[in-house]
Amino acid sequence: MTLNAYQTLCQRFTRHYRFNHLQEIAAWDQAAFMPPKGAEARALAMAEMGGFLHELMTAPELKALFEAAAQEPLGELEQASLREMRRHWLRTNALPQTLVEQRSLAASRCEHAWRQQRPANDWAGLVPNLREVLRLAREEARYLADATGLSRYDAMLDQYEPGMRSATVQQLFDALRGWLPDTIRAVMARQATEPAPIQPQGPFPVEAQRALGAAVMRLIGFDFEGGRLDESTHPFCGGVPEDVRMTTRYNPSEFLTGVLGIVHETGHGRYEQNLPTAWAGLPIGRARSMGLHESQSLFFEMQLAAHPAFAQLLSPLVRQHLGEQEAFEPENLSRLMRKVQPGLIRVDADEVTYPAHIILRFEIERALIEGDAEVEDIPALWDAKMQELLGLDTRGNFKDGPMQDVHWPSGGFGYFPCYTLGALYAAQWMAGVRRDVPNVDGLIACGELTPIFDWLRTRIWTQASRWETAELAQRASGEPLNPAHFRAHIERRYLQA
Amino acid sequence: MTLNAYQTLCQRFTRHYRFNHLQEIAAWDQAAFMPPKGAEARALAMAEMGGFLHELMTAPELKALFEAAAQEPLGELEQASLREMRRHWLRTNALPQTLVEQRSLAASRCEHAWRQQRPANDWAGLVPNLREVLRLAREEARYLADATGLSRYDAMLDQYEPGMRSATVQQLFDALRGWLPDTIRAVMARQATEPAPIQPQGPFPVEAQRALGAAVMRLIGFDFEGGRLDESTHPFCGGVPEDVRMTTRYNPSEFLTGVLGIVHETGHGRYEQNLPTAWAGLPIGRARSMGLHESQSLFFEMQLAAHPAFAQLLSPLVRQHLGEQEAFEPENLSRLMRKVQPGLIRVDADEVTYPAHIILRFEIERALIEGDAEVEDIPALWDAKMQELLGLDTRGNFKDGPMQDVHWPSGGFGYFPCYTLGALYAAQWMAGVRRDVPNVDGLIACGELTPIFDWLRTRIWTQASRWETAELAQRASGEPLNPAHFRAHIERRYLQA
Repeated sequence: MTLNAYQTLCQRFTRHYRFNHLQEIAAWDQAAFMPPKGAEARALAMAEMGGFLHELMTAPELKALFEAAAQEPLGELEQASLREMRRHWLRTNALPQTLVEQRSLAASRCEHAWRQQRPANDWAGLVPNLREVLRLAREEARYLADATGLSRYDAMLDQYEPGMRSATVQQLFDALRGWLPDTIRAVMARQATEPAPIQPQGPFPVEAQRALGAAVMRLIGFDFEGGRLDESTHPFCGGVPEDVRMTTRYNPSEFLTGVLGIVHETGHGRYEQNLPTAWAGLPIGRARSMGLHESQSLFFEMQLAAHPAFAQLLSPLVRQHLGEQEAFEPENLSRLMRKVQPGLIRVDADEVTYPAHIILRFEIERALIEGDAEVEDIPALWDAKMQELLGLDTRGNFKDGPMQDVHWPSGGFGYFPCYTLGALYAAQWMAGVRRDVPNVDGLIACGELTPIFDWLRTRIWTQASRWETAELAQRASGEPLNPAHFRAHIERRYLQA
Repeated sequence: MTLNAYQTLCQRFTRHYRFNHLQEIAAWDQAAFMPPKGAEARALAMAEMGGFLHELMTAPELKALFEAAAQEPLGELEQASLREMRRHWLRTNALPQTLVEQRSLAASRCEHAWRQQRPANDWAGLVPNLREVLRLAREEARYLADATGLSRYDAMLDQYEPGMRSATVQQLFDALRGWLPDTIRAVMARQATEPAPIQPQGPFPVEAQRALGAAVMRLIGFDFEGGRLDESTHPFCGGVPEDVRMTTRYNPSEFLTGVLGIVHETGHGRYEQNLPTAWAGLPIGRARSMGLHESQSLFFEMQLAAHPAFAQLLSPLVRQHLGEQEAFEPENLSRLMRKVQPGLIRVDADEVTYPAHIILRFEIERALIEGDAEVEDIPALWDAKMQELLGLDTRGNFKDGPMQDVHWPSGGFGYFPCYTLGALYAAQWMAGVRRDVPNVDGLIACGELTPIFDWLRTRIWTQASRWETAELAQRASGEPLNPAHFRAHIERRYLQA
C-alpha cells in the first residue's frame, strides 16, 4: 500500500515526535537528576539531536509533499491536521540554520552570565550580551515576518499564540489598564480594614511538603500512572503527553506558594495528560497554544485552588502533613491565598497585580522587537511603567526590575502576553463552568471536582489543536475571548465577597 | 580543512555516540523512573532510535571509508582506534535488518512471558518461545560466523569477549572442573567445624540501607559528581561514561547481599567513570570487554569487599546506619561474606561455587548454538551437570533451574563465560596489586584504598580498548590470563586463613 502525501507527512511528523520524546526526557533529566560532570556530554548529545530534529523538519522533499497534500481530497479533520503540520513546518523553515545556531549560542551565553549578573544587580554586565540576543531576535522576527506576512512582533507572538495579534493584545491590555489600578487600590483599602491573616510558622520539613504536594496533586486529578513530580531549581512541566514530568522546588520556611506552584504545574500537566491519544505524534494533537496552556495552569491555581471554597479541601491535607496550626484553618488559608500586595517580582505577584507586570513587559518587548527601543532604554521604560501601573519605584534595582526574568536573556520575546491571555481565558472557562454545571461553589467545597474537570476535558484538553484558538474559545464557552469575565472574577472575589 | 577517511569515520562514530547517549538515558529512566503509562510511547521512541542508530552504522559509504582509512598513514594509536571501529562496524553489518527486528521481537515476547512463567515453574510454556529465540540466535550466529570466520558459538562469544575462543574457555573451565568440586567439599567440611556466623536481625529500613549504600560507594571511590545510584527491579549499571547510572534494589529483611550488590555495580561504574575522556565517543575509548567489565565488578566485590580486612571498614558504616548488633562485628561480617554453600541460584552463589553455575551454562549454550542440543534437552543436561558439579538434584524445579536467568529468554547466548573469566581476571589483578603495592592487607584494613584503585586506573580503566585483551592482561599484570591466581585466591581465603 502506498501512502499519499498527507499520510507520508504524518509519518514524517510522527518520526520527529518519537525522536523529540528522547530529547524531552533528556532535558527533564538534565534539570532534575543529572550530576554536574554529565553536563558537557549531555549538551553535545542534545545539540546533535537538536540539529537532527531541525534537519527532519527542513528536509527538501517536505515542500513537494505539502504541495501535493494540498491537492488531495482530505476530510475536515485531516485538513486541520495538515494546517497544523504546515504551520510548524513553515515556522521551522523560515529561519536559516546559521541564525538558529547563532541565536542558540548567544542565548546560552547571555542566560549563563545572567545567572551570576542578576544577584549582583549587574545591569551594565548584562547589556552587551542582551544587545546581541536582541539583535538576533530582531533577525529572527524579520525572517518570521517575511514568511508569515505579519509584523515583526506579531510574527514572534504567533509562535506562542497562533492567531493572536499585538493590536488585539494592546486593546485587551488597554482595557485592563483602564480599571486595574483603581481596583488594586480598592482591594488594598478593603484588605487594610481587615485584620492580617495569620502567618503559618515554619519550618516545614521538605519530606512533609513532598507528601502534601502529592496529596494535593491527587486531589486535583493528576494521573501518577502517566507522570511524575520531581525537583529542580527552576520548576517546569516537561516530559511528553504520555509521561508528564513536573518539577517543583521546596522552601523549608514557606509552603503555601509551593503548593500553589504545584497546583499551577498540575494544570499544565493535566492538559498534556488528556490530549487525545488518537492524534499523538501529530501537531493537531498538541496543546493549542501557550496562552491556552497558561489558561489551564491558571484555572487550576487561581480559579480553583484560590477559590475560597477550596480551602475546605486544602486545610485537612495541610494539617495532616504539617501538623496543627491556627493558620491552617480554611478561612485563614483562603485569606492568605487572596492577599493582594503590589510588588516588584512578577512570579510572586497575586492575580490582581499580575497583569500589570505583563502589560509592562509586552509594551517594552514589542518596542524592542519593532526597533522602537534599545536595550539601554529598558530601565527608564521599566521605572515609568512600574510607577504608573503599581506605584512602585524601581530605580537602580535592576535585579528586581528588568533583570528578574529569564525570558529576554534566553531570547524569548513574544511569550509574556500569554500569561495574561491565560488568566483572561481561565476566567472565561470558569464562567462557562458556572453556566453549565450547577452549584460549582458547593461542588468545590465538598471535593466533587469531576464535573469541573470534565468540562475542561471535553471542551479544551481533548480538542488539542483541532480548532484555531478563536474557534476553540467559541465552541468551549460560546464566545470569543471576552475580558469581562476576568474583571467580574476579580471584583467578585476581592471586592464583593 | 578536509577530513581524511579516518577522521570522517571518527566523526561518524562520535555522532552515533551522541545519539546513543540519549538512548542510554532513556533506557535508564525506563527502568528506574518511568510511570507505566509512559511505556508504549517510550518503546516506540526507543525503537525509532534503535533503527536510526543501526542505519548510522550500516550507511553504505562506511565501507569505502574503511577501505580508504586502511591505506592512510596512521599512527599506532589511530590504528588501534580504526581496528575497534572496524570491529563494531563489521559486527553491526553482519546481520540483515530483518533478522535484527525478528530477533528483537521474539526476545521481547519470550522475556515478557518468561517473567510470568518462571514463578509458575511453567517450563512447557517457555519452550515454544525459547525455541523461536534459539532459532533466531542460531541464524545470528551463522551470519556472525560468516563475517568473522569463527565457529558459530565463538562468533557469539566474540561479541562480548573479543579474541576469546570457546576452546580456551573449555580448557580453563576443564581445569576448574578438575579441582573445584574437591575444594568446595573441603571448604564446606572446614566451615562445618566452625560455629555458624550470627545472622543480622532485620528489618533494615530502606532509607537507612540507602544511606549505607551511598556511604559504601563513597568509601570505594564512586564519583557522585559523575553518576547516581537509584532503584530498579533488576539492578544494573547504565548511563554513559560521563554520567554513570547505577541501580539497586533494597530488601528490608536482608542488607548484606544488597551492599555487596552495590559494591559490585560500583566496580562497573568506576571502570566507566575512569575511561579516558580523550577517546570519548570512539570505540577505542570503551571498556575492553564484558569479561574485563566483570573483572572490575568482581574485583570490587570479591577481591576487595569480601577481603577479611575490609570488614574493618564496613562494620562502622553498618553500625552507623543500621544500629548496634553483635552480628555487625567485623569478624562476623567477614564470615557472613565468606560463607560457602552450594545452591540452585547463580546470582545468590558465593565465589567458590559460582564457577560451577557458569561452566554448566557455557556447555549447554554452546551445544545449543552449535546445534548439538535442542531446547527440549536443556532440563536433562542441567540436572546432570548440577549433580556432577554441585551435588544438587534439580529435577522438576525449572524455576530455580534452567528458567532462573533472563539471558537465554532474551536471546543472550555467549555472555555467561564472561562472569567466570571476570573472576579469573580479578584474581590475577589482585595478584598484580600484591606484587606492585606493599602491604595490601594493611592498606585495606585502614581504608587506604587509593594505591589499589590507582593500579586499576592506570593499568585497566584508562587503557580502555587501546589493546586487545590478551595484550592488556600482559601489560597490566605481566602475563596473559592465568587461572592459577583464582585457585590460589580461593585456597588462601577459604582453606588457609
